[in-house]
Amino acid sequence: MSDSNKIYTAAMIVIGDEILTGRTLDKNTQWIAQQLALQGIRLREARTIPDDHDTIVGTVNELRALHDYVFTTGGIGPTHDDITAQCVADAFGLEFGRNQQAYEILLGYYGPEELTEARLKMAETPEGAELIENKVSGAPGFRVENVYVFAGVPKIMQAMYGAVSVTLRGGKAMLSASVMCALQESVLAPGLGKIQEQYQDVQIGSYPSYRAGIPGVSLVARTTERDLLEQVTQDITDMVRALGDEPANPVYQGL
Amino acid sequence: MSDSNKIYTAAMIVIGDEILTGRTLDKNTQWIAQQLALQGIRLREARTIPDDHDTIVGTVNELRALHDYVFTTGGIGPTHDDITAQCVADAFGLEFGRNQQAYEILLGYYGPEELTEARLKMAETPEGAELIENKVSGAPGFRVENVYVFAGVPKIMQAMYGAVSVTLRGGKAMLSASVMCALQESVLAPGLGKIQEQYQDVQIGSYPSYRAGIPGVSLVARTTERDLLEQVTQDITDMVRALGDEPANPVYQGL
Repeated sequence: MSDSNKIYTAAMIVIGDEILTGRTLDKNTQWIAQQLALQGIRLREARTIPDDHDTIVGTVNELRALHDYVFTTGGIGPTHDDITAQCVADAFGLEFGRNQQAYEILLGYYGPEELTEARLKMAETPEGAELIENKVSGAPGFRVENVYVFAGVPKIMQAMYGAVSVTLRGGKAMLSASVMCALQESVLAPGLGKIQEQYQDVQIGSYPSYRAGIPGVSLVARTTERDLLEQVTQDITDMVRALGDEPANPVYQGL
Repeated sequence: MSDSNKIYTAAMIVIGDEILTGRTLDKNTQWIAQQLALQGIRLREARTIPDDHDTIVGTVNELRALHDYVFTTGGIGPTHDDITAQCVADAFGLEFGRNQQAYEILLGYYGPEELTEARLKMAETPEGAELIENKVSGAPGFRVENVYVFAGVPKIMQAMYGAVSVTLRGGKAMLSASVMCALQESVLAPGLGKIQEQYQDVQIGSYPSYRAGIPGVSLVARTTERDLLEQVTQDITDMVRALGDEPANPVYQGL
């Protein structure tokens, strides 16, 4: 679904001590960012916070008021440190308890003998939450208004995103083109600055990298307008050539 | 340096559209989180925000008031999209302009001919900022009060962190032990919850993972007290054995 005028925005809340202690590298933000870009939804911020009740409640309430969508990852399993579902209920001021539909899903998945007390914890949601299917491991995520509660395990999170993605309304997809060259940023800076001035509606970024010790720069243009993107990419390519380098062919995304 | 009573906290601000569009995977947060843990500084939150002036200023001001340290990464190069230094000046209400010491560093690094207008942009800091050495590519980072401004390129960021790490005052180092087993979280949950109740001062986390399609769980205990850590790790190991699995030897960090 698309609405050509409105700009849709989203925020992510990455919940878990394991990220903030450096134990686990969060790859969910990048994955969701890429999906949202294709759907015309702009990820405006991502916050990583600890498994702390008041912090989760406060962050959910702050961000759900600012954005069209909030996605949380982590903290919905069966153990004592999984407190996200309760916190989302508290953020909305909703009762928290057994969700009959979630109970039936878990019953079907585990059978009556294996549906232990611990697993039943995963059948608890805020009152009235809409479940999000989990094809990987049964226990569902859920949505309350514009807050989508996903698991932290990437494979499960991705399945949950896939289950709701068609329901997310977005604007025009963000298109991008990346021109890689071997010049230094400081050599590119004046010309690139002029191109940015000329194309105020295009976001132009310059990203240095060291691959195998060799410095290079990716020049990335982003806009929702295809013609504009092709035009600015041509200008960037011409500038790189004028500076004496032959850039790689531009890599387009979203076209 | 260490102060045994105070709990030191930090926040990270990851600045850059390239993270929020999914172009680049942020690995800096994990690296800094690991370093801070060893130095007895707790990373309490990490925020990823766009290259937007008001957002950067607001986030710096919010977080510097809440934490002992704030680390920013990204946005200090020579191109038009590098606006972090100016934003930090604005956050503190400081003048922004040529830093004589930074100018001399760049002059020494590039020589007078190669010290172009674009590179001179990297000699601009908030007034009175203390420079942070960059052994990788010359252009320094800087510190204003408790805000440390680092480059976004991991290699350079790491060199900058290395240049300031001995000056960071921390509390007791956070120690951790990780016990990996092949049981399911829901099987572990009741016993683990009881252990958590018994050791209120230890953070205990349960992290499921799928390696080569095989589900497993890491049980992680974190505390600053070595004796307590060994005791709780023994209890976790005993619990796993009582549930019929033989866990791997615990992996300790920070001891």
